[in-house]
Parts: sequence; structure tokens; C-alpha cells
Amino acid sequence: MLKINENYLKLPGNYLFAEIKTRVNDYKEKNPDADVISLGIGDVTQPLNDEIVNALHSAVDDMSVPESFKGYGPDHGYSFLIDAILENEYASRGVKLGSNEIFISDGAKCDTGNFQEIFGLDNTIAVTDPVYPVYVDTNAMAGRTGEFINGKWSNVIYMPCTAENNFTPALPKETADIIYLCSPNNPTGTTLSKTELKKWVDYARENGSVIMFDAAYSAYITDDEVPRSIYEIDGAKEVAVEFRSYSKKAGFTGTRCAYTVVPNALTVKSESGEEVSLNNLWARRVSTKFNGVSYIIQKGAAAVYTDEGKKQTAITIAYYMENARIIREGLQELGLKTFGGVNAPYIWLKTPNGMTSWELFDKLLNEVNVVGTPGSGFGPSGEGYFRLTAFGSRVNTIEAVKRIKEGLEV
Amino acid sequence: MLKINENYLKLPGNYLFAEIKTRVNDYKEKNPDADVISLGIGDVTQPLNDEIVNALHSAVDDMSVPESFKGYGPDHGYSFLIDAILENEYASRGVKLGSNEIFISDGAKCDTGNFQEIFGLDNTIAVTDPVYPVYVDTNAMAGRTGEFINGKWSNVIYMPCTAENNFTPALPKETADIIYLCSPNNPTGTTLSKTELKKWVDYARENGSVIMFDAAYSAYITDDEVPRSIYEIDGAKEVAVEFRSYSKKAGFTGTRCAYTVVPNALTVKSESGEEVSLNNLWARRVSTKFNGVSYIIQKGAAAVYTDEGKKQTAITIAYYMENARIIREGLQELGLKTFGGVNAPYIWLKTPNGMTSWELFDKLLNEVNVVGTPGSGFGPSGEGYFRLTAFGSRVNTIEAVKRIKEGLEV
Repeated sequence: MLKINENYLKLPGNYLFAEIKTRVNDYKEKNPDADVISLGIGDVTQPLNDEIVNALHSAVDDMSVPESFKGYGPDHGYSFLIDAILENEYASRGVKLGSNEIFISDGAKCDTGNFQEIFGLDNTIAVTDPVYPVYVDTNAMAGRTGEFINGKWSNVIYMPCTAENNFTPALPKETADIIYLCSPNNPTGTTLSKTELKKWVDYARENGSVIMFDAAYSAYITDDEVPRSIYEIDGAKEVAVEFRSYSKKAGFTGTRCAYTVVPNALTVKSESGEEVSLNNLWARRVSTKFNGVSYIIQKGAAAVYTDEGKKQTAITIAYYMENARIIREGLQELGLKTFGGVNAPYIWLKTPNGMTSWELFDKLLNEVNVVGTPGSGFGPSGEGYFRLTAFGSRVNTIEAVKRIKEGLEV
Repeated sequence: MLKINENYLKLPGNYLFAEIKTRVNDYKEKNPDADVISLGIGDVTQPLNDEIVNALHSAVDDMSVPESFKGYGPDHGYSFLIDAILENEYASRGVKLGSNEIFISDGAKCDTGNFQEIFGLDNTIAVTDPVYPVYVDTNAMAGRTGEFINGKWSNVIYMPCTAENNFTPALPKETADIIYLCSPNNPTGTTLSKTELKKWVDYARENGSVIMFDAAYSAYITDDEVPRSIYEIDGAKEVAVEFRSYSKKAGFTGTRCAYTVVPNALTVKSESGEEVSLNNLWARRVSTKFNGVSYIIQKGAAAVYTDEGKKQTAITIAYYMENARIIREGLQELGLKTFGGVNAPYIWLKTPNGMTSWELFDKLLNEVNVVGTPGSGFGPSGEGYFRLTAFGSRVNTIEAVKRIKEGLEV
């Protein structure tokens, strides 16, 4: 008799963004004429830039004739893309990595979700709170998180990040084996400084932990002092995996391409005392359960790194960061307390008048037709906060801020 | 202290196709002028057809302007593709399915590998032997297969498929919870009849098992009596998941698109006796760990189902099936015993003179520069067999058969 994975039954409710989608669709069905603006799910709105579009067309043409047709690609990804990443994302910041240390994938969500598979079930995970739900949910599915009681998992170390501690997680008193950090942070829009990151690298080295460093938003960092990569910290290669994505950097949420860095220096002792390379384990996972990213899409991603591609990518990022400024300053004028939105495309705001996160969600949806993301959906310490994204169009962003300012009493 | 997933250390050697790649690359390095023809890994060689190429270009253009730009797509996939699948792959064969029962993915390898995640760890899997390695390896990684001793896993039911039983697996005496069947079969190129499939559906219904039905090669079936889908068998919707792919149907090995069918009628009792929908569990897995297939690629896949797309797809399949005939008849003329290659793109041959599978592999690689796949790589009962694929170009296929006929003594 088939047994299901009972861990799935422990998961609370819907995946956050599915729940938001459901509420918005319900509202739209009842109010078909409503002009709902979404600054909720972190989805981009600006088209792919010309350099990428040209590269995609050219790659489609490659697939149309036998001479340049591509079947299965290399497991790790094509070297034209890996080499461009090594040079532009890492060497340019003084980080030296080898080509076998980069794994091209179809999304940072997939990779941050799947990576836990190569770890044993008897590890304790630590996450910041609030946190991108995928880290916890995927560990819960694997059975690593214990029981879900009063909004928390019994075997997860939550590290609160609130205005009180300037959104900087404190080192846990317990030993955390797998530590998820995200900077620039989703959802709070804040970043970790070199000093803060160094603290975590040191902790991981002392405790034999691994850091899952989600840097999906690194392209939005404007301050030169803020590290783009955890490998800018000495010793990080021995304790950290890094996740990057083209979703936000180049508008690839619907195009799909990302990459994960697993340094060769990252080794862990097995039960028998053998030194095991996490790069080898992940390579085995990739070659067994994945068949690479579409050649066409990898060609599109590589166009991000041509001279023209860099210029065009920077223009789109600047466009979104101007949205961030409009939201940030607009809400501040209203008297709301906001965080983030400087080195990140997310604005994290304190709900006014003691409202809960979902109360503010429903109020904004129903009264001014603006969709955001309730902070409590990201974890217990997100209660009383609310996330808005800078990924809307300019006209929608301005209109949304105007509506909030007119409709919300603070 | 971080613990790794120790199950990975139990995995034998390399993933089969990685091992083949290594041996071929070694040979090529030592013999840089050798003209090596690969009929080994099941990779296509013919370009995408015009209808698909046009659809891909048009989708790239959609991504280039704000009006038609697409961000995150629907979790399950776009309805333009799902609807085309429902009509052309299923309704046309008398199978009625709903749109929420189809999940678009980036590959049948990924889905056949990932699907086991929603099952408990204390299930017993059954596989045909020989078998596509992904089914067993992914269960081994999860810890479901026991120990690997003398070429077999202690907690896997192997169902030998050899010339002696006409490559038809017998029902196991033990209770199998998760049964992997593949028809048309990779690697043997044989198919299961309606009567045979019915036997398995009945077994699964009696024993509370689930059938993972891999139909990635269904487009190669020429005989109208051979079922394309397991849902052509009464009662299958309550016990079977089906995997399909565009990799071989439309030359998408490097383009990446596939789909998985999880009927709503497929439910399993949880420990507490609750009736749980596998469709719901898989939907949760997909929404948590995946972000859909590129819009561009889904548009390309949908072009397979236009009138012109159907014609062009049929032409390419006929091209490969003519290759299959050339290989099959050529090897038979040499006196080799062959199987498959009629309703499937694989030819499965008995090694001559009592050679082992890897002996024949090395001999063909080193002496006539033809690459095939050793049968033993697919499981213990594959020893003494060898797989050739029909996916080469015509000129390479003819040349490879000529070389084998001249160089191999039978």
C-alpha cells in the first residue's frame, strides 16, 4: 500500500503567493471593472532588452538548421554563459572561481528549494524571520523542521529581523547546521554589510555549518561597500553556497535562468569520516535529476554581459530603483515608516494603526485596489509589516502611491 | 555540524551517460582525428521544424514589448499549451482529462526524478530490469532503495525483461508500492500491449500501488493497437501518473519542455486515514519548488499541435524511424539478434560471442568509432545487450551500420 510523504500534510495553508493570487482573483471576479495594481508578488513588468531579444532570436535560428542545432547541453550549463559569469559577476569583484563551480539552472527558487536534498534529514536549519517561504517549506517537505505549532516549526531556528535590531539577525545560541541568508533581503529590502557577513562566515567555520546565501537581488545594490557576493568575505568559499538569478537582474521571471555557485573548497565530513565535496554531490544531483536550461535561454542570459547588454540592463534596473524611490518617499510623506528600497527593489513598511499584515492587505485590495504582500506571510516577525515591490511600471507605481496616500489614514 | 545525505555515497559510480561521455572524451583526446559517430545517448540531431521556429521567434517578440511581455506564468503552465495537449494527445485517443491534471515542466527526466518526493520513504519500488537509470537513482538518493550489493539494491523489486520473456515484466510476488513502467521502452525499444498494461492497472488497484508511467516515446508508436497513454486502460486514472516529453517528439532535448499528468481521481490514504489527492500534493510541490517553463519555450511546444506543426513533426519522426529500420535490418543482415526499433526509436541488440555490454562498447568505440550504450548500464538483466538509437543523422546512421557490419564478427 502506497504511503505518501506525510510531511506535506503538516504544511500550513497555501504557498503565500498562491493565497494572494486566490484573494486577488476572487476580488476581480466580484469587481470585474476594478483596475487592480499589483505591487505584490515580485514580478517584473519591463520587457527584455534589445540585446537579449537579439540573442534569443539568433539562438532560435541556431536551432533551425542542423549545423548549429543543439541537443542536450552540458550538465553545468554552456561555457559561454559560465565564463561570462565568472568574469563579470566574480572576477570583477575580486572573487576567483572555476568553471566547474558554477551550475546554470532554471531558477533560484528551484535551486534554493532543491539544494537541501544533498543534506541529511537530521540537520537543524536557521532562517531569518521574516523569510522567503521557499527555504522553510522545502525543508518542511523533506521532514527536517519538526511540527508546525502556533505559526512556527519546532525544529527551525528563527532569527527575528525587525526594526528593533535594524533587520540584522543575531547569531543563534543553538547550533544551526544549515543557515539561510538573503541579501539584499527578500522581503525586508535591507542588506548585510561585510562586517555582518563576516560574523556569519566565522560562525559557520566554527560550527561546521553551511550558509545558503541567496543573492538573487545583488544587481540592485547601489552602494559599493555592500558585498554582492558572500565570497567577498575571506573564508566563505569553505562554508557557503551562493544563489543568483536573472529573474530580477534582467527581467527573466518568465524566461527562466539562474545559477548556483558551489565552491570546490566546500567539503563536509561524512559519517565514516570521509571528506565529501558538496560540489560533487550537487553535480551528481544535477546530472541525475536535471537536463540543463534551454540553449536558447542561456544565449539570452549571456547577452546580459555584452557591453550593450550591460548598459541596457543597468537602465532597466535604474528604472525600477526610481520606482523604489517614488514608493519610499511617497509612503514616508504619508507618515509611514519604511525600510529597504535603496539597495534592493523591495520596500518594507510598518502597518499603521496596529493593523495586522493581512488586514492591510485586504484594506488596500478592497479600498484602493492595490496589491502588496502581507509581512506575516514571510514569518511570525513579519506580522505588522507589509511588502511593496518596485517592479511595477512607472505609471502604475505612481498611481498606486497616489491611491495609498489618498485612501490610507495613518 | 552539517550532515550530508549519506544515501548519495551509496550510489554506484557515475551516472551512466556521464561515464559514456568520459570514455568517449578520453578516446577523442587520444585520437583527435577520429570520426566518432554517436548512436549512444538518446539525443536528437534534426533541427526544430519551421512551425516551431516561427512560434519561438514570435514569442521572443512578445517578450520585447511591455504590452505582451510575460513575467511569472501560471504554475501548471499556460492554458494555450495545456488545452492543445488535452485535445491532441488525449481527447483524440478517447481520454478525457481536465486542465488542472496537466503540469508543464522542463523535462520528463526532472519529473520522473522528482515525483517520488511526494511519497513516503517507506515504500518499495519496482522497476523493470533493464531500466532508465533515473527512476532507481533518484529513489536511492531519497533513501528508499536499501543497500547496493552485487549490482542490485536490496529494497528494489527488479522485474527482468529479456528476450526469454519477450521483454514483458511479470507481476512481482512481493507487494510493490511504486511501479515504474516505460512504454515504448527505454532501453529495449519494446512496447506494452493493452492486455499487458491492463494487468498492471489491475495489480495496482488491488495492491494500492501507484504506476509511474513513462510515455516519453509515445510519438514513435506506429501500430494503432499499442496504447499511447496508460489512460486508454479503464481504471488507470485512479492508479497512474503519466510522463510525456517534447524531447523526442519534437527535438526538444536542448530546448526543454515536457508534461506530467496527475489525474484528480488518484488518491491515497494518509496515516490518519484521510483521502489525499496526489494532484494536490504535486501541485504543492510544483508551486513551492518550481517557477514554470519559459513562456518562449511553451509557445514553441504549442506549435507542435498546429496543422502545419503536426505535419512537420510527423516528417521528423518518420525520418528517425527510417534510421531505425536501417539499423535494425543492417544488424540483422550481419546476423545479430535485435529487438525494438518498430514502435520506438531504440534498437536493443544481443551482444555477439558472449561479450559483455561494456566489452562491446569499448570494441565499437575503439575499432569502428561508433558509440552505443552498454545494456548493463540499465540494470543487471541488461548485461549482454546493447542499445543503439535512431536519433542520428541519416548519413551517420548509414555509415555507423556499415562500419559495424565491416568491423564486427558475429
